[in-house]
Amino acid sequence: MRCFAGIDVGGTNSKIGLLDENGNILITESIKTESNKGPQDTIERIWKTVEKLAKEISVNIEDIEGVGVGIPGPVVDESIVKIAANFSWGNDFPAKKMFEEITKKRVKIGNDVKVIALGEQLYGAGKGYKNSITIPIGTGIAAGIIIDGRILAGTTGAGGEFGHIVINKKGHKCGCGLTGCLETYCSATGIVREAKIILKDNKESTLLEVVDNDLDKLEAYHIFEEAKKKDKIAMKIVDDFCDNLAHGIGTLLNIVNPEIIIFAGGVSKAGSIITDGVKKHLDKYALKMTTEDLKFAFSELGNDAGIKGAAALIINDLK
Amino acid sequence: MRCFAGIDVGGTNSKIGLLDENGNILITESIKTESNKGPQDTIERIWKTVEKLAKEISVNIEDIEGVGVGIPGPVVDESIVKIAANFSWGNDFPAKKMFEEITKKRVKIGNDVKVIALGEQLYGAGKGYKNSITIPIGTGIAAGIIIDGRILAGTTGAGGEFGHIVINKKGHKCGCGLTGCLETYCSATGIVREAKIILKDNKESTLLEVVDNDLDKLEAYHIFEEAKKKDKIAMKIVDDFCDNLAHGIGTLLNIVNPEIIIFAGGVSKAGSIITDGVKKHLDKYALKMTTEDLKFAFSELGNDAGIKGAAALIINDLK
Repeated sequence: MRCFAGIDVGGTNSKIGLLDENGNILITESIKTESNKGPQDTIERIWKTVEKLAKEISVNIEDIEGVGVGIPGPVVDESIVKIAANFSWGNDFPAKKMFEEITKKRVKIGNDVKVIALGEQLYGAGKGYKNSITIPIGTGIAAGIIIDGRILAGTTGAGGEFGHIVINKKGHKCGCGLTGCLETYCSATGIVREAKIILKDNKESTLLEVVDNDLDKLEAYHIFEEAKKKDKIAMKIVDDFCDNLAHGIGTLLNIVNPEIIIFAGGVSKAGSIITDGVKKHLDKYALKMTTEDLKFAFSELGNDAGIKGAAALIINDLK
Repeated sequence: MRCFAGIDVGGTNSKIGLLDENGNILITESIKTESNKGPQDTIERIWKTVEKLAKEISVNIEDIEGVGVGIPGPVVDESIVKIAANFSWGNDFPAKKMFEEITKKRVKIGNDVKVIALGEQLYGAGKGYKNSITIPIGTGIAAGIIIDGRILAGTTGAGGEFGHIVINKKGHKCGCGLTGCLETYCSATGIVREAKIILKDNKESTLLEVVDNDLDKLEAYHIFEEAKKKDKIAMKIVDDFCDNLAHGIGTLLNIVNPEIIIFAGGVSKAGSIITDGVKKHLDKYALKMTTEDLKFAFSELGNDAGIKGAAALIINDLK
């Protein structure tokens, strides 16, 4: 049986899976990444886990056709991690080379967000489409852009850094150094900050009740929940959020013109209140020909998106 | 000898060329498009011209391996022109099918801007790069995006419609129906409009002299010329233009992350005053990792870009 390893290297845990050629997970296990022990140690532990898993389902190591790896940070040429963001493995970290030396397999490396986008397109909410954009919204916001079935990685791995497009020149300073980035509005931290600004002058909101008048306790999901219950202030905050998100998505549409937008990440769990809000404002920012047949969806693979997408880096290539 | 036909169908004239497999033009000729005679007539006249040109350089029609066609309007699947913008050939015009029926050759259709971008990347200013964006600035502004050597066409042909990203929600109404599009600032018409607004309250400018105080005579090149001669008002207008253009380009960089930006079109003839101005403002809008190794250049192929890029649609595919 043709078999593929999909590895989702995270800051804390790394998820490891063996998959068949249709992206079905045969077996999976999570280990601590413990990146402080160094890349050699981490990759060897990952590979030992693969060998153990293969044994458990009676797969010969020789039958593993390749290893796909998703990792945080910008990835160049499916091999080098420019900035190993969550690890102290240095810049221009040669991930592909090290994985190849240890595994003796064909290896491809992808940025974690982009790999998830590939997984969703091939095996999840984007199945059947050629051009999709997966937008994870959590602490930050980014875009995994898939064009004709291939990841748009960018020359230095910065393709899809759409959280940092400037939508308001006079806006907030962003952690990246720019001012007025989409991410300062359309992320969990962004919406909470906007909410705090509005709540200072508007005390008539159930939002204050749910956090016992302690705004330090306010989280993004409170805002979406109270908006769904028709609290006027929460509704206004969510409407602004959706307006700004529509601005960002409209920009993406006019440049990339995909078939489907897939929302992922913690904030997307708010559900249709986001898609409804974005649709309401989108016509201000996107050319009609980019929206007429556009679909919206939510991530379907959840925690499996990482290993499925990682394995897809290899599977996709053999087709 | 392997030979390819490159055809650049324009609103008034159509340029027709025969090229070798390295994109060198062997022979070329321009004919009136006269699209009012209908597509059958136009395509037949184009093909007769190809046959005539082939005869002139002793190429057998059998040796023409394919026909690449650049045409205005959004093109889908390298075959259908969604909106035949400059012609009355109807929407969803089956260009590939009609060209194939008449020429009996392998045919690929591309949008004219995107085809020019492909030509520049393969044979002009973008030679040697894999990821480039060619930005023609004239009456309007657009982007021909090439990723890994392939045109980003977009699902409905709207890929690279970057003239219509909204950079100022409270800006001017654009011809496309949106408000505050980049094109309302960064185009020949856009800069002239901004100039007229500023010149109403600022009479101390050589710009008024060069148009004999008749602002109806003002054109984009006047503004760039007077700015080069250090007229303060013209310099301010050009600086605003470059600031807005940097906003648009920074957005593109954060999403597509190319290796090189190539300026084309009439306005780009102003030269380094544009690249210098964009570079001055770019750090406000683009992540550093997208600009560090970024190159800027100007179109090198001029009027030949259309037929070279059109032929490249076929040549590129055979490699």
